[in-house]
Amino acid sequence: MNPITAESITMSDLQIISVSLGNRSYDIEAGSENLEHIGSFLTAFKPISAAVILTDENIVQQGYAHRVAESIAETGIDVHLLSIASGEQSKSIETTATLWETLLEEGIDRKSVLISVGGGVIGDLGGFVAATYARGIRFFQVPTTLLAQVDSSVGGKVGINLPNAKNMVGAFLQPLGVLIDTKILQTLPETQYQSGLGEVVKYGASLDAGLFQLLETNTEKINIRDPNILKQIVTDCCRIKANIVAEDEFETTGRRVLLNYGHTFAHAFEIQSNFTLLHGLAVSIGSICAAKLAVRMGFVNEIFLKRQIGLQQALGLPTEIPEGIDWLQTIELMRHDKKSEFGKLCFVLPTGIGSCRLVDNIDSQLLEHGL
Amino acid sequence: MNPITAESITMSDLQIISVSLGNRSYDIEAGSENLEHIGSFLTAFKPISAAVILTDENIVQQGYAHRVAESIAETGIDVHLLSIASGEQSKSIETTATLWETLLEEGIDRKSVLISVGGGVIGDLGGFVAATYARGIRFFQVPTTLLAQVDSSVGGKVGINLPNAKNMVGAFLQPLGVLIDTKILQTLPETQYQSGLGEVVKYGASLDAGLFQLLETNTEKINIRDPNILKQIVTDCCRIKANIVAEDEFETTGRRVLLNYGHTFAHAFEIQSNFTLLHGLAVSIGSICAAKLAVRMGFVNEIFLKRQIGLQQALGLPTEIPEGIDWLQTIELMRHDKKSEFGKLCFVLPTGIGSCRLVDNIDSQLLEHGL
Repeated sequence: MNPITAESITMSDLQIISVSLGNRSYDIEAGSENLEHIGSFLTAFKPISAAVILTDENIVQQGYAHRVAESIAETGIDVHLLSIASGEQSKSIETTATLWETLLEEGIDRKSVLISVGGGVIGDLGGFVAATYARGIRFFQVPTTLLAQVDSSVGGKVGINLPNAKNMVGAFLQPLGVLIDTKILQTLPETQYQSGLGEVVKYGASLDAGLFQLLETNTEKINIRDPNILKQIVTDCCRIKANIVAEDEFETTGRRVLLNYGHTFAHAFEIQSNFTLLHGLAVSIGSICAAKLAVRMGFVNEIFLKRQIGLQQALGLPTEIPEGIDWLQTIELMRHDKKSEFGKLCFVLPTGIGSCRLVDNIDSQLLEHGL
Repeated sequence: MNPITAESITMSDLQIISVSLGNRSYDIEAGSENLEHIGSFLTAFKPISAAVILTDENIVQQGYAHRVAESIAETGIDVHLLSIASGEQSKSIETTATLWETLLEEGIDRKSVLISVGGGVIGDLGGFVAATYARGIRFFQVPTTLLAQVDSSVGGKVGINLPNAKNMVGAFLQPLGVLIDTKILQTLPETQYQSGLGEVVKYGASLDAGLFQLLETNTEKINIRDPNILKQIVTDCCRIKANIVAEDEFETTGRRVLLNYGHTFAHAFEIQSNFTLLHGLAVSIGSICAAKLAVRMGFVNEIFLKRQIGLQQALGLPTEIPEGIDWLQTIELMRHDKKSEFGKLCFVLPTGIGSCRLVDNIDSQLLEHGL
């Protein structure tokens, strides 16, 4: 294994996180009002025959896609802007096929770069197209939601959905770089912002006590979306995830699974809600279930649980299982989780603020009477 | 760069070529009547949750697919046999989507292996499905045509076609291993056998003088498809290609392009024939055009040309441009070859028996009056 190699340095107003994976490395640049920095970020990778911006209609409407396009065009690179419908239904085989053919028609070649400007759907879809068109072209990420900035844009997992299975087709593709502008988050719809915060609390509670404390002492600033505290939080989350990915890029050593605190429950909730419950909100509720299970098993005490729920409530996150979720069906769905084996349930459980472990032999009877 | 690491050792009746790429390596096993060895070859990679055999209706009809299936089943591995229509039209987005969904329905997971049993279409398609399903599952090749045994099964290029562009979508995926049974070639249709020989002569003429001499002295045995001479030839070709791929896995250093003797002309001929001219036959004709160009440029003399054409004729390969191919259109198509830049033509040209170089600044006027 490689040593932990992600590190964060301050460069004037920007935070640069260097992600090292074996003999490759790339930078995540986090700032506020730095969207126009994309052009100069990309010039380091010339020659570039063309830049394809993949985005969705919401991002176009808010003007972000054109700001990215203009910044790149100013450096003399030929820019192609492709906008698709917003929403999970675009992460499909059909949209992928249309994009492959569009790239061919527009003469995109191996010296081109595909740049995803959007949330998780645009990042995952654009990454999969980049990984497969012409056996792979270069890829760059500009995540525009909090969830994408702290989670899906880091780690190299790209992919699309099959009609009956999310993220079932995909690849591992590390980008040339990631540019994060936290100022953009000010126009994010409230539920999407909260969904991102659900993952942020997960990082603090299960992986980084320092981040957890930072969140506890800054809930008001976070609630008004202060760009500077957001820049700090996003940087911390990226650094935490990049360190884990650097140790386990292809999910083979068991280290990467520790990113999944609250996720076994969350996936079962999302499926039952037919994916109307946003991922990060499901993680928020799921992490409370996991914390209660950890209390029952003696890994943490009630104080841990109270601190976590207290932070989630202060940030306006859901803490109760919503109506329409059936507990026994939740258990049944968790038996089919990718992590489960031989009918035993598998959870990432906290062992204290900022630490956790994988527990893979939980008998489902332990949960039948609720938590 | 890594040193050349492919080496060939004799193991009783089997030839084993070890292909090393960075910190990974895998074996190509070449033999005659060794198809049933697949089961024991695979057991080295246990645990295997299931083996998916992808094949086509011809291979099923000839009994090869079931022989592979039975050999694997005997080792206790769960086997799923998927057969698709023969022919290039199966290398499509639609077939790929159907296969992804079939794998999901059959419960295939990351501990499964996909085994392509067939020619280039089955190898390329199966490899692409394996590279992308569940972000990548393990892949194994059993090539059943001479062309697939000496060329497409080695090197890790996998992919599918877009409606207007061959191999435009794909990935680089090295297999767990390759099993080659040259006995199978005895039932191969004659034109397909010759297509494979077109590539075999290419290896000898442009990359390996020893192979060229071996071919010259064994044309009769080759024409009656003697399994032992075929095993030797196939092993030589795999070793030559594996050495070059080991030096330039992702086609970035310019070394891998040397596998393309005759290919710039061949691609132009194939397109004009609407792909009714088989690839290896087009390569045979294309390599004569390239040899004549090399004579004109003083890289080789007439003796080289005569020896090459003599060998091709003795093996029954086409040596003349077929009717329906327009010379000026050929030149125009070659301007759009992937290797060409700034309107200059680009060719791999011989510099002697078994040696060649890339020449990338040929003015098209040099060719206008024919060769």
